[in-house]
Amino acid sequence: MAAIFPKNFHIKVRVYNEEINFGKGVAQLLQLVEEHGSLAAAYKEMGMSSSKAWKILHRAQEDLGFALVEGSSGGKYGGGTQLTEAGRKLLQQYVLFEHDVQDFAEKRFAEYFK
Amino acid sequence: MAAIFPKNFHIKVRVYNEEINFGKGVAQLLQLVEEHGSLAAAYKEMGMSSSKAWKILHRAQEDLGFALVEGSSGGKYGGGTQLTEAGRKLLQQYVLFEHDVQDFAEKRFAEYFK
Repeated sequence: MAAIFPKNFHIKVRVYNEEINFGKGVAQLLQLVEEHGSLAAAYKEMGMSSSKAWKILHRAQEDLGFALVEGSSGGKYGGGTQLTEAGRKLLQQYVLFEHDVQDFAEKRFAEYFK
Repeated sequence: MAAIFPKNFHIKVRVYNEEINFGKGVAQLLQLVEEHGSLAAAYKEMGMSSSKAWKILHRAQEDLGFALVEGSSGGKYGGGTQLTEAGRKLLQQYVLFEHDVQDFAEKRFAEYFK
């Protein structure tokens, strides 16, 4: 019998203190905040609701113990929002970490499953 | 401001053809089937329902295109169940792959976040 082995792999990378929550979604949101200087522009580009965006941000901030974003939030269309210094650093490290893991997994997957 | 960086990481590894589904849960179920020679003993040890166990097995088998388990399934307490040759091979490779990824991630995490 010729076994047909899986063609793909999927790896989800998250970092946290007590509750698993900082993953690709919130990282992408932060990257878009950095790019646009606006939380509203960020979640809209992701097709995410305002309430969902705030929820994932708040959860991550609460778990991590520091603010990821800062800035005014008033106005009908939302004020400007930036990453905090700690938020920017965490994002950079997460992106590097996540990339390294995916890269390593790709090589190993090819060895084991091709 | 002293940033408190995350203490932990969590990585979920799955392999698939079309639909993401073969992960740690079904791998653990297969390992217990191998150990006990019984699907019922396996899902009971995991605190999993019979319907859930069959669902995750069927989904994985359908996506992979080959059987993972074989054996009689009759009788009030279920007949014996074994892994197929392909199921055993896939399980072994998944376990090695998953372990390598976790191991690599642990080293990288320590470098980036400690």
